[in-house]
Amino acid sequence: MSTAIVENWRQTVNTKRASLLNLIPREWRLRDTEIPLVSRLKDVTTFITRFLSPLEKQITSATVPIVLENIQSFNWSAVEVTQAFCHRAALAHQLTNCLSEICFAEAALRAEELDALLRTTARPFGPLHGLPISLKDRFHVRDLDSSCGYVSWLNNPKSETDEGALVKDLKKAGAILIAKTNVPMSMLIGETTNNIVGSTTNPYNRNLSAGGASGGEAALLALRGSSIGWGTDIAGSIRIPCAFNNLYGFRPSFGRISATGLADNLPGLPTAASVVGPMSTDLESLVHLMRWFVDCKTWQDDCKVIDMPWRDNIFLDTRNRICQDGQCNGSLVFAIMRTDREVNPHPPLLRALSLVTSALTQRGYEVVEWDPPSHSLAANVLFQILGSTAGQSVRSAVEASGEPPIPQLLELFNGSNSEPLPTSEFWKLCEWRERFQQQYHDYWKSMRGHTASKRMVDGVILPVAPHAAPPEACFKYYAYSAVPSLLDYTTGTVPVTFADRFIDHEPYQYTPISDKDRTNWRLYDKDLFDGCPVGVQVMGQRYQEEKVLAMMSAVRDALQQYQPL
Amino acid sequence: MSTAIVENWRQTVNTKRASLLNLIPREWRLRDTEIPLVSRLKDVTTFITRFLSPLEKQITSATVPIVLENIQSFNWSAVEVTQAFCHRAALAHQLTNCLSEICFAEAALRAEELDALLRTTARPFGPLHGLPISLKDRFHVRDLDSSCGYVSWLNNPKSETDEGALVKDLKKAGAILIAKTNVPMSMLIGETTNNIVGSTTNPYNRNLSAGGASGGEAALLALRGSSIGWGTDIAGSIRIPCAFNNLYGFRPSFGRISATGLADNLPGLPTAASVVGPMSTDLESLVHLMRWFVDCKTWQDDCKVIDMPWRDNIFLDTRNRICQDGQCNGSLVFAIMRTDREVNPHPPLLRALSLVTSALTQRGYEVVEWDPPSHSLAANVLFQILGSTAGQSVRSAVEASGEPPIPQLLELFNGSNSEPLPTSEFWKLCEWRERFQQQYHDYWKSMRGHTASKRMVDGVILPVAPHAAPPEACFKYYAYSAVPSLLDYTTGTVPVTFADRFIDHEPYQYTPISDKDRTNWRLYDKDLFDGCPVGVQVMGQRYQEEKVLAMMSAVRDALQQYQPL
Repeated sequence: MSTAIVENWRQTVNTKRASLLNLIPREWRLRDTEIPLVSRLKDVTTFITRFLSPLEKQITSATVPIVLENIQSFNWSAVEVTQAFCHRAALAHQLTNCLSEICFAEAALRAEELDALLRTTARPFGPLHGLPISLKDRFHVRDLDSSCGYVSWLNNPKSETDEGALVKDLKKAGAILIAKTNVPMSMLIGETTNNIVGSTTNPYNRNLSAGGASGGEAALLALRGSSIGWGTDIAGSIRIPCAFNNLYGFRPSFGRISATGLADNLPGLPTAASVVGPMSTDLESLVHLMRWFVDCKTWQDDCKVIDMPWRDNIFLDTRNRICQDGQCNGSLVFAIMRTDREVNPHPPLLRALSLVTSALTQRGYEVVEWDPPSHSLAANVLFQILGSTAGQSVRSAVEASGEPPIPQLLELFNGSNSEPLPTSEFWKLCEWRERFQQQYHDYWKSMRGHTASKRMVDGVILPVAPHAAPPEACFKYYAYSAVPSLLDYTTGTVPVTFADRFIDHEPYQYTPISDKDRTNWRLYDKDLFDGCPVGVQVMGQRYQEEKVLAMMSAVRDALQQYQPL
Repeated sequence: MSTAIVENWRQTVNTKRASLLNLIPREWRLRDTEIPLVSRLKDVTTFITRFLSPLEKQITSATVPIVLENIQSFNWSAVEVTQAFCHRAALAHQLTNCLSEICFAEAALRAEELDALLRTTARPFGPLHGLPISLKDRFHVRDLDSSCGYVSWLNNPKSETDEGALVKDLKKAGAILIAKTNVPMSMLIGETTNNIVGSTTNPYNRNLSAGGASGGEAALLALRGSSIGWGTDIAGSIRIPCAFNNLYGFRPSFGRISATGLADNLPGLPTAASVVGPMSTDLESLVHLMRWFVDCKTWQDDCKVIDMPWRDNIFLDTRNRICQDGQCNGSLVFAIMRTDREVNPHPPLLRALSLVTSALTQRGYEVVEWDPPSHSLAANVLFQILGSTAGQSVRSAVEASGEPPIPQLLELFNGSNSEPLPTSEFWKLCEWRERFQQQYHDYWKSMRGHTASKRMVDGVILPVAPHAAPPEACFKYYAYSAVPSLLDYTTGTVPVTFADRFIDHEPYQYTPISDKDRTNWRLYDKDLFDGCPVGVQVMGQRYQEEKVLAMMSAVRDALQQYQPL
């Protein structure tokens, strides 16, 4: 590689970093001495509030419905709300490196316009009037880059015609974009690092990764630097960072909502494509935004979206099956998957799974054990499907600038130097996937015979990864999050607990069940993971968005109401 | 190729042919002298009735609802009904070579059982109690072959576990399978010929092809040798033979109804897969069976089926927009596509399209012209997608027995001797398809600006092929039927008229618009096509099954009520 090219990409990166910093108002910038050393303070989720005014704290603690209500009732102006979230986002970025594009100035202007409109007409511009939101870097937005961690994709600002349905509808609804958020080079790993912005760290423990690929989004939301955010998920990219950052995340089934206007590594991928979904610190906001976007009827414009309106009857029917104060009429049936028999989850996760089981059982739900067809094999097939040409396209995007690939990619695409598969081999992988989908469907149905109530299992609780947020370059095993993607099952994450060095001990003796399990168990260190959020997945079947959102609230409520005996 | 192998496949074929003949009761067999020479009688649709008793004629002329009603009210026994259809199917086979598997004896036994049950309990076994039905050879049925025109797939009778949802549900509903029907070797061409049964001819004109791939089914139904039939459609295999045989045929969108338990040339095909649909001489029967199968809720067992119950409100809303006796309240808006600008339809088709336009206009519907993105290019991409590994799998199935490929395959898979595509190329085709789907969707939406009512176009009328049923080995151009498949649009066929030597003249001077158009126009001969049925497609968008079925009745009614001025 010539020195000229090397110089070139470094210069591009330096310019971008400087321009990002310049987009943060001087009064919001932190002096080096104001940023605590990680060795002194790992968790910055409380620390961040010291820079905020009482009103900023109040605003940035509110859920989406509360923010909207306060703006529409003139308690808070859109300018106040936007300023508060932008200020907090600026701090979040300086603490965790979570932003890739900043548009605070444009956001402030838009907020002024919206305030003026509301004052003049007394009517909101749209259902999300004045709501500050953030997006994963993949979403094309006018005048912003979608570099997605590739230096070669920088300095290519998008136009309005590049924008997809979500961005258009958010604008039309009166939402205000304040920033786009960091992703890993390739967007295909469970951490967030690249040569442009660098690595996004976990706000609960800055020694650890924020997770990925929507890791910048998760770190920003965990620090309440945005009211709500949107990510994309092909094998866990929404669910992994949500679980690692104490968030609710949602993976709808493919085609339920529009996923247009995205930067894409894998154009033409004919199966197992990625989906768009919301991420949030609270479930009400998540439901609010999912429901709003389904109601946007994007099937009118996007041929991939199914003409399936929001089914409130299913949402309410499922909510009616939530156990309330001992009254359980035909209550939901859950299954719990404690291990995929290839890699056992770490102690904090095992404790979280037990906690969920106890909480659900205490409320009166039936919980059965889940031992389905091999997740590990299935995840392997998914990565072969994606990898069949991903290696080629990632390499060409990396090589175009001369930047070096991040170390994680060398490992993930090990062997990807070979040529793309012949179609006949590719079809065999697709056939295997179809067979697995049917086997899983059959297993799900067969479990009816194993419930005491003889009712179908409604939702499955399972880990998102075999560990909480790991240190960078340590995420190796994707089967827990990849299988719901392979199945195209509607799946959400629910926060459960935090890793605790005093109770999540390393087992005295542990016999690994596989080589991958050995690697995973070597990673466990109760001190390292201390304080890390631990979440679980709540998995339904295909196109069960309304049902899974309602089941997520059942799990959340059970955890909140749980009284250890 | 060794003589031993040649002898072997010929012997296998001879045995199969003899066994088929043996399955026809002696009293139903025609002497050679009873079968009129084609030169003496092309059309056997009326001729066939001379061998039937008055009751057999009455039974085999009835629609599905009438057959079911008569059995349940004890007017006809299931035995009588089954015998009548089996007799007529036996005659149909001897006149057009339409059957691949015969199960008259089993059908008679089952009919006896059902009669006994109804007599004893006074309750039908199921909603299709005693209904004689037929299936394209692809559907696996216990104890029968699914040879699909490959000698190497003969003598491999299927078991009950091979049966898919449709076959299981038909049996559960009390339907009686009387035969499976002939398909072309590979099932990938628009004609029906193979080395086992031979060629299925068109009952309206035995000089011509029955069409394909569900050609045996169409010929059988046109001769009323079955009450209703089911085919599969990947690029027109239901719609082509239906249009060529004066039938209503239906292609639902992928995933609306189950398509399991099928013999498959293209396992693992990850996109643009084939769908299952009903074929019938009348629309009431078609609607009855589609509705019944949706109501079977096959999504409970088949993970590919969407949990979308029959939407009677959409069916009724669309029916309410049918023009009745001058009353048109928000009536349906149709578009008409007279040519795809690559190959112009023959005179009988152009007349049929004008007839439909006049009939719809006379009833009070708005009809606009349809000039969408290039169908021809799109069809080309579909065949590249299918052909990317089809060549390999078809060759191996053919070569396994040593039989020669049918001439049509040499042409369709010209160049398929090359290796399967690399995945990266395959993904590009898939990406092209996705782009085309969106362009078409955008075009459809944009046409709203071109209707006088400013309403959306509801349905598009277009040809199924640029010709009526051609002589064997003359079907070359698939774009008209392939594009609805590529788009996954719900599409049905409606019979319109018959080619007529006295009015469908060759134009005095014709300037071909392309090489393919030249080939197609060289084929036209008013005497050759005389008497051939001509149908059109009624195309809706994705998952509009209820709407398209209702629109098909709007077109049928308009044609029936049309009064030439």
